[in-house]
Amino acid sequence: MSNSFDLQTLRHSTSHILAQAVKRLFPEAKLAIGPSIDTGFYYDFEIRPFTREDLDNLEAEMKKIIKENHKIERFELPRSEAIAFMQEKDEPYKVELIRDLPEDAVISFYKQGDFVDLCAGPHIDYTGRVKAYKLISSSGAYWRGNEKNKMLTRIYGTAFFAKDELDKYLEHLEDIKRRDHNKLGREMEIFATVDVIGQGLPLLMPKGTIMIQTMQRWIEDLEEEWGYVRTKTPLMAKKELYIISDHWEHYKDGMFVIGDEEKDKEVLALRPMTCPFQYYVYKQSQKSYRDLPIRYGETSTLFRNEESGEMHGLTRVRQFTISEGHLVLTPEQVEEEFKQCTALAKYVLKTLGLEDDVTYNLSLADPNDMSKYIGDRAEWDIVENKMRQILNHIGIEYKEEIGEAAFYGPKLDIQAKNVYGKEDTMITIQLDMFLAERFDMTYIDANGEKKRPYIIHRTSLGCYERTLAWLIEKYEGMFPTWLCPEQVRILPISEKFNDYAEEIQKELRKHKIRCSVDERAEKIGYKIRERRLDRVPYQLVVGEKEENDKTVSVASRYKGDEGSKTLAAFVDGIVKEIDSKEIRKIEVSFSKK
Amino acid sequence: MSNSFDLQTLRHSTSHILAQAVKRLFPEAKLAIGPSIDTGFYYDFEIRPFTREDLDNLEAEMKKIIKENHKIERFELPRSEAIAFMQEKDEPYKVELIRDLPEDAVISFYKQGDFVDLCAGPHIDYTGRVKAYKLISSSGAYWRGNEKNKMLTRIYGTAFFAKDELDKYLEHLEDIKRRDHNKLGREMEIFATVDVIGQGLPLLMPKGTIMIQTMQRWIEDLEEEWGYVRTKTPLMAKKELYIISDHWEHYKDGMFVIGDEEKDKEVLALRPMTCPFQYYVYKQSQKSYRDLPIRYGETSTLFRNEESGEMHGLTRVRQFTISEGHLVLTPEQVEEEFKQCTALAKYVLKTLGLEDDVTYNLSLADPNDMSKYIGDRAEWDIVENKMRQILNHIGIEYKEEIGEAAFYGPKLDIQAKNVYGKEDTMITIQLDMFLAERFDMTYIDANGEKKRPYIIHRTSLGCYERTLAWLIEKYEGMFPTWLCPEQVRILPISEKFNDYAEEIQKELRKHKIRCSVDERAEKIGYKIRERRLDRVPYQLVVGEKEENDKTVSVASRYKGDEGSKTLAAFVDGIVKEIDSKEIRKIEVSFSKK
Repeated sequence: MSNSFDLQTLRHSTSHILAQAVKRLFPEAKLAIGPSIDTGFYYDFEIRPFTREDLDNLEAEMKKIIKENHKIERFELPRSEAIAFMQEKDEPYKVELIRDLPEDAVISFYKQGDFVDLCAGPHIDYTGRVKAYKLISSSGAYWRGNEKNKMLTRIYGTAFFAKDELDKYLEHLEDIKRRDHNKLGREMEIFATVDVIGQGLPLLMPKGTIMIQTMQRWIEDLEEEWGYVRTKTPLMAKKELYIISDHWEHYKDGMFVIGDEEKDKEVLALRPMTCPFQYYVYKQSQKSYRDLPIRYGETSTLFRNEESGEMHGLTRVRQFTISEGHLVLTPEQVEEEFKQCTALAKYVLKTLGLEDDVTYNLSLADPNDMSKYIGDRAEWDIVENKMRQILNHIGIEYKEEIGEAAFYGPKLDIQAKNVYGKEDTMITIQLDMFLAERFDMTYIDANGEKKRPYIIHRTSLGCYERTLAWLIEKYEGMFPTWLCPEQVRILPISEKFNDYAEEIQKELRKHKIRCSVDERAEKIGYKIRERRLDRVPYQLVVGEKEENDKTVSVASRYKGDEGSKTLAAFVDGIVKEIDSKEIRKIEVSFSKK
Repeated sequence: MSNSFDLQTLRHSTSHILAQAVKRLFPEAKLAIGPSIDTGFYYDFEIRPFTREDLDNLEAEMKKIIKENHKIERFELPRSEAIAFMQEKDEPYKVELIRDLPEDAVISFYKQGDFVDLCAGPHIDYTGRVKAYKLISSSGAYWRGNEKNKMLTRIYGTAFFAKDELDKYLEHLEDIKRRDHNKLGREMEIFATVDVIGQGLPLLMPKGTIMIQTMQRWIEDLEEEWGYVRTKTPLMAKKELYIISDHWEHYKDGMFVIGDEEKDKEVLALRPMTCPFQYYVYKQSQKSYRDLPIRYGETSTLFRNEESGEMHGLTRVRQFTISEGHLVLTPEQVEEEFKQCTALAKYVLKTLGLEDDVTYNLSLADPNDMSKYIGDRAEWDIVENKMRQILNHIGIEYKEEIGEAAFYGPKLDIQAKNVYGKEDTMITIQLDMFLAERFDMTYIDANGEKKRPYIIHRTSLGCYERTLAWLIEKYEGMFPTWLCPEQVRILPISEKFNDYAEEIQKELRKHKIRCSVDERAEKIGYKIRERRLDRVPYQLVVGEKEENDKTVSVASRYKGDEGSKTLAAFVDGIVKEIDSKEIRKIEVSFSKK
């Protein structure tokens, strides 16, 4: 579709139409600002919060304004007149905006019918050009984004050139809503939050717990296969430890501190990282080059004192558990071990079906602010170049991100986006040539001399809570069978077959298959619908025929009806699927309602 | 052996002989006190610390005093003369002791040769009566046990009627030293502590970590079989939660608090218990009587702000992980479920080989100080009587301990002693009729009415760290095979057989057997000795014959030489032993050196 204006202009004009509608229905509203954004536009007003009903009424009023097809006209005013004009209209935010403009700024307004707004433009020529728009939601927003200012009421909307584009976008929004782990994860009883416990401190419900337990055991065993030994180190330490590690200098604000530095003899802090703890495991005896590489892994709980406003579901939390690890290496071992860490991370992502959703960042120090880091620029050049060289040898495509390094070294960050498009680091592999010095870690080389090892800090799956959120959104709660909190539900068609159902359950549990029997006196159709809602991948319906033949009637969310099978055949199939961590393709789609 | 005096008298007199020896060799020493104790006697002196060499010299001097066979004679002095007498001898501690005696006390002294001591007696008649004695150790001790007073030097010793009794006791002391988890656990690299991390915050080394992982997975799976569902809840919460639970009132001093109640908007505390967190898991939806019993289990890390002086190895720590759980019950379910909790705990103890080492306490509220508890005396009578009734029905022999209840209910405490005879609670099962009210927990009964459930707080294995300490002492580090950090060591008799050894390792690892190959260029005898020191239960020696025949030469710490076996036969046997958690009897004993 060709237009004489671009999408941003269309959306910006739609925000003016919204503002005009608000002033018609709520004349007391004061106008703040109304820009276009990536997904549409918003406009902030000083007024009471809006309901969905208000938004519907506003949409109807916008329809009228569009139909009236006002010409949109630009005019300019000198500064003092512009201020007087907006004072007369009793728009204090606009007055403030004009006052903040540079002395020599051209001050322009746009007028459509009886509505005038301070605006740099550009705009479309007639309100009638707007064909496809929607008000999405309303929420509070501080004036100028500063929480010390007044809370205004923001309306988010969007506009497209054509109705089908809008419909596609609205469908996408519905999809996001369905997938959003912060909603779906609660509905599915995977996690919950409780006001009196605190923000960023989610409770994993039994379903979420079993998923994390499943992943955790898998990762622990996998890392063992890849040559890791495990540690279990304390979750807190005296501040003296963090002074050595430089966390006290570079990271204190992000830590939970226990005790008062002024008053208390002993000040402790919850750990934000596992590094120094594993270093002391290393330091318990003098190592030689023959002992290296040593690969320490830990299922490690960490704490970050995040701002309240930043908490979100399972992804922004104040406590989380991570597959943390540190490799202690001779210089010659660094490249091969880094390669292996990357391979392990990729294997984990592939197994979870997430490998195509990630991008790679090389996070480097900010050369303009080296005070944030241990070591000097020359040392960082060495380690950053080594990192580039390794990544180039591995053949990973990566983007360089200045200023995103850890304070002790550059990082390879494996990034993924959530349903809203917000990018987070899921896995990180870091090279460190500084902390061994800080902690006086040594090994004896082949010539009998004490040397400093290199250290790789790394995760293989990253943070379990965040990965769980990612999986919820990726699979819309329909996880690969091996991860499902409930893998099989057995549905007797009447209570006469409860005994047979329980016999099946016993057999399945012998094979460590997570299952339940739905023995409630409900209609079978109701039970089947509920099984689908609960996203249980397999259902076994059993009645007289099945009991007599010692079979089960299998239906799955992958294929629908899978027919009648002997119990042994079903067990055989699902055990293979679970053991191989298969991600079965979905061949049919069920209604989700 | 019949004596005209008892063992306490003998030991008390031996402490005087020690004091006499000290005054002979160290005339500048000031005498404090020297009582008999359960295991012998001690005497405190103001003097520099003693070395083992000093103790040996003192023992030699004591031998002389005994040989000189002084008569031990009692005499009395009036108070003022007694004080003057001790002032003249320049014994300020004795002067202080006399001054602290009641006005009308009889003040007696005992004299042997040129040595006189203030003492109430009784004593033996001649120093020559002492036949079997030993000075055990020396350490610092505050005068009158108060850390504000001067640090004195204490000598511990013991005495027996006969040499063979002494030898038996000394052997027992050697055994304790060998078993003491705080020594052996460090030597075996099971755990370590680090000054800069902090007291009571042990690091589990790879060997300890794998043992705890093994137990943890076992308990998690076992509890699942016993009908538990698992949770994973946050390790901290806002103080508001602890105000509801009454921990803030009754337990605040034992908690790590983050933030300042005066200054900070939000004050958090690390959790000392899991209860309120699991209650909120329960409260996420309205439950009915059909949903009960619900049994929540959690591998839960807890924190207790213990005094520095109380820390000890893995048993007195500030952070620990426990197999915590809470059962939510209708009143009718309480007895049966309590019974099951006890049965589960007993099963766990039996599996670990610890069942015969425990005693049972019923810990009750202190009727003279009900302010320490939630609820009033009448309510406690109900719940305590219910508890007695249940225990009598189960048929457990228990001792009642007044004042040892939790603040929310009585407890069945399963107690065990460490090598030094110090008793600790290993497992606890508690009945609670108060906290459901506090947290407004309800279920809908069969008549559609909201009711308060009963709650059982319980552990199945208790605290993993403490259990690990117990196992180290019980088995002197020679754990049942399924718990061993390393189960098999493969010893190629020369490097020519390293490939075959690695082939075996690969096969064993396929069966999840924890093993290693000792490929070092050391003599085979050296490797075998080291395997024994490391307490690895099985060794497979492989050379030319074994490689050709595809066999292994098995030796075990249970039986010694077990002969040549095919690899398959060995794997079969050890897998059965591990899977059944067998505690193999030791049929031979190896030298530990």
